[in-house]
Amino acid sequence: MTDKIFRVNMSTLTTSVEEVPAEWAGHGGRGLTSTIVAAEVNPTCHPLGSANKLVIAPGLLSGTVAANSGRISIGAKSPLTGTIKESNAGGTAAQLLARAGCKAIIIEGVPGEDKWYSLALTPEGITINEETELIGKGNFEVLSVLDSRLEGKQAVLTIGQAGEMRLAAANISIKDPDGGLRSSGRGGLGAVMGSKKIKFITIDPKDGKVAIADPDKFKQANRVFAKALVDHPISQGLGQYGTNVLVNIINEAGGLPTRNFTSGQFDGHEAISGETMHDTILERGGKVKHNCHAGCVIQCSQVYHDAKKEKLTSGFEYESIWAMGADCCVDNLDHIAEADRIMDDIGIDTIETSVAMGVAMEGGVLEFGDGAGVCRILKEEVASGSALGRIIGNGAGAVGRAFGLTRVPVVKNQAIPAYDPRAIKGIGITYATSTQGADHTMGYTIATNILNVGGNVDPLTKEGQVELSRNLQVATAAIDSTGMCLFIAFAALDNETCLPALVDMLNARFDLNLTGDDVVSLGQSILKTERAFNSAAGFTAADDRLPEFFYTEPLPPHNTVFDFSDEEIATFWDF
Amino acid sequence: MTDKIFRVNMSTLTTSVEEVPAEWAGHGGRGLTSTIVAAEVNPTCHPLGSANKLVIAPGLLSGTVAANSGRISIGAKSPLTGTIKESNAGGTAAQLLARAGCKAIIIEGVPGEDKWYSLALTPEGITINEETELIGKGNFEVLSVLDSRLEGKQAVLTIGQAGEMRLAAANISIKDPDGGLRSSGRGGLGAVMGSKKIKFITIDPKDGKVAIADPDKFKQANRVFAKALVDHPISQGLGQYGTNVLVNIINEAGGLPTRNFTSGQFDGHEAISGETMHDTILERGGKVKHNCHAGCVIQCSQVYHDAKKEKLTSGFEYESIWAMGADCCVDNLDHIAEADRIMDDIGIDTIETSVAMGVAMEGGVLEFGDGAGVCRILKEEVASGSALGRIIGNGAGAVGRAFGLTRVPVVKNQAIPAYDPRAIKGIGITYATSTQGADHTMGYTIATNILNVGGNVDPLTKEGQVELSRNLQVATAAIDSTGMCLFIAFAALDNETCLPALVDMLNARFDLNLTGDDVVSLGQSILKTERAFNSAAGFTAADDRLPEFFYTEPLPPHNTVFDFSDEEIATFWDF
Repeated sequence: MTDKIFRVNMSTLTTSVEEVPAEWAGHGGRGLTSTIVAAEVNPTCHPLGSANKLVIAPGLLSGTVAANSGRISIGAKSPLTGTIKESNAGGTAAQLLARAGCKAIIIEGVPGEDKWYSLALTPEGITINEETELIGKGNFEVLSVLDSRLEGKQAVLTIGQAGEMRLAAANISIKDPDGGLRSSGRGGLGAVMGSKKIKFITIDPKDGKVAIADPDKFKQANRVFAKALVDHPISQGLGQYGTNVLVNIINEAGGLPTRNFTSGQFDGHEAISGETMHDTILERGGKVKHNCHAGCVIQCSQVYHDAKKEKLTSGFEYESIWAMGADCCVDNLDHIAEADRIMDDIGIDTIETSVAMGVAMEGGVLEFGDGAGVCRILKEEVASGSALGRIIGNGAGAVGRAFGLTRVPVVKNQAIPAYDPRAIKGIGITYATSTQGADHTMGYTIATNILNVGGNVDPLTKEGQVELSRNLQVATAAIDSTGMCLFIAFAALDNETCLPALVDMLNARFDLNLTGDDVVSLGQSILKTERAFNSAAGFTAADDRLPEFFYTEPLPPHNTVFDFSDEEIATFWDF
Repeated sequence: MTDKIFRVNMSTLTTSVEEVPAEWAGHGGRGLTSTIVAAEVNPTCHPLGSANKLVIAPGLLSGTVAANSGRISIGAKSPLTGTIKESNAGGTAAQLLARAGCKAIIIEGVPGEDKWYSLALTPEGITINEETELIGKGNFEVLSVLDSRLEGKQAVLTIGQAGEMRLAAANISIKDPDGGLRSSGRGGLGAVMGSKKIKFITIDPKDGKVAIADPDKFKQANRVFAKALVDHPISQGLGQYGTNVLVNIINEAGGLPTRNFTSGQFDGHEAISGETMHDTILERGGKVKHNCHAGCVIQCSQVYHDAKKEKLTSGFEYESIWAMGADCCVDNLDHIAEADRIMDDIGIDTIETSVAMGVAMEGGVLEFGDGAGVCRILKEEVASGSALGRIIGNGAGAVGRAFGLTRVPVVKNQAIPAYDPRAIKGIGITYATSTQGADHTMGYTIATNILNVGGNVDPLTKEGQVELSRNLQVATAAIDSTGMCLFIAFAALDNETCLPALVDMLNARFDLNLTGDDVVSLGQSILKTERAFNSAAGFTAADDRLPEFFYTEPLPPHNTVFDFSDEEIATFWDF
């Protein structure tokens, strides 16, 4: 069975199953979503109009037994940034989509009538069904109702109220193996799904399997690959404390953006740290280690219980905890966990929305430190679509514009995440040059700037940062195409058996003869495809900048500014 | 006495009076504000930050007896569009500023402390005074209190609550000879003034006079010029019905955007027409003819009374009436006049805010036709800075983003005014290519498309529109530099004595030997200066577009779309 393109036209309410064009065959995940968006979407179109397309693709290795290969890529023109966008997440969707023989879903058009729909995908194709019961409901209720409606183990992609309201921070949520939620969080892809009036998508692969050209070679390579992942010390730290291990590390480095990016250290860091979280989870009977998709050997997720020892949230990430914590000066992990759960339920990006709260605090909407206030605004304003809720749900840039503020931490209108570019300069290059707005995952220089993975580049000097960001952005684009979790990068940078084993798996799966150089070429070509889309959409070098205040306001405790010239930033694209 | 530059630094709270650099000497009005902004403002700066500058300049002929020469130009980087911006208005400021010997005021920096200030300008310089009493007050109260505070006839420029809140649609209001208000409406310049914490500026020229090199030649030329203005039939129509004479004309042409740009004709057009307004004014004892500045011979303003025969508003323009009327489906002129007065008091652009109301109606905030609701939202939400008020006060684009809508009539985030570009195609070229976002006054093709002034170019075909818009945009940039009202263009296009007389006045004032060709060159060079600023700010040809729906949704009754290709639009810049 050869994989197919599953196409849905929401204007005509028709579907089709199509052969994969030759020029798309070598792509998967982000490489494929970006290639399809660049080929089929007019770069100047309105992101919420009928000309935009939502593309969903498993990675090249998704659906196989390859360790950590269960990430799903979702792409479109972003309503938040106006750029091309790919956002990937765990959950069961990538693996089941691949097993259903689907190379990518392409959803185009918008319905003429004011009705809502769901999509049901099987290996035979997609059916479109009108949906009424679940409209206006949060993601947890959607999952709960679908548990009783659906037969067997099916994947679910869903939007909450934020996506229905087409808020620019709306995410697409993906059911995980435990029935929890994973988020394609960044860039407002939930708003694109909402604009097409699709509340949820189910994926039933029946008894489909992914074909492997050389199963023995594949298994052998996967053993080497998985061992490299498991052996890396960062993997072990992630398994114990989750990504939230970073709170104390980044605070110590003076790069933990605090009080809407006015300091690099947070007095309350201990209270929200990975260590505190770990102990609290143990005390309340949650899970310290937890996987977001089957086959993950790192298990950086966790299940966090409330004081009554009942499950409150899972997949409780450093960036979310930082944003609600240090950036909003909230030092109460239970408030942060509750806010995290509400945002997952509404279906809205935790980074964008929490940074928006920090900007709103500066604008006087609520006091810094008011964690209960954050939860109240999420429940009462954002979920209901009040005017204030819509301002916050449209992201940090929208809050900044509404309140006429200048300290607004966004690049290409997307919120800057948990690493201050004045104290960790490499990540500033990533924020500025990324094809998708500010996003640490696009080229995670923290690895080398702070964690000494893949070498060591001093975070406080300019030297080597552009090259570091470039190498990581290229590698990331390739990794994002395989369905692999980005956290394989630590092993790939430090263990010389890791990347060859990954290439071996690709070769064994598709009967190819790729080399490491081909992987680099793939990453470069993806970045260039994405950048060409953005250029046609009207983006220029003038958009590859951090906000003015990073250049003019020194950040304590190092009292440094971001001091790259425009020309220095522009050299990023010399490849 | 040679004119000087009056500079104010709000960061240091210092002022200076400087010689005019040679390269600025030949400029006035818009040419000068744009030249200064381009020279001194970093194009990528935050419009509300300390790097932006607010520049205020009288026209080259302002302060003289030249007919219709009392327009003041205000420029900055716009918080609404992100482009360079010039907005001009009547009132007494241009004439008194010129008589004070001021070539331009340049206001830079932002105060470090959270205090408000006023500026007092005399021929000796500017003093900065802290202001407390009038903070939070509307423009009418500011004028009333200043009437008792100030000695003699002084000009006043002021911001209302909208400017204090730095809303992107905030205007700068200028006192007129009757103590009413004129608005530098477009582009949010009031927010720039608010960001610099300046509530108002007073101008006292003492006994200053404008020097004329050849007074006899000047007087002679002005006689010819004024006669050309007075004789033109459009001037006469404007004097009788105001600009609102256009409601019935544009409705008849099928280009009156109605119900948020879904039709080109409004059933209620008679109720809001210039003819109805004229009769209502007569009946209630208002003024049919009224001037916005001393020396105007057209007098298109009027004073509109309420049902109790008390003054409600003046300067009641077609574009404002259209926006609250046809675009919001409000067919009650009293509601529209009340809304107009409230917006003048808050200090917010009537076009931007009313188009924003139309988009909000589409978003379900209130019903189309609810004129009382519009007034209530202005008074209760916008004036108080509620979340909804801030969304609407940030303009049509902000409302579209907040509510996730696609039918959002903006170009470069500025609301499209009262002429639908599907039915009047020349104006679409102006909207798309203007250096300042959608703005009919930048190149008023209605003159030739609809009013048969300067020839006749069929509004429904593409032929000749690019050239028409180009010629008018070039001419307008030059006219905006003289301090002349744009309505001199009708006579200039049709009466061959008009433009030479204007050139004669410039030569007589400054002892020059300009020709008509020099005026064209001046206009071209201003457009190029403005465009270069925008390019450096990151704008490209991809921004020179109308919103998608103008290309895809046919407009009744002609059922036409805007059908210029990107390449055709780009030819605008071939000069």
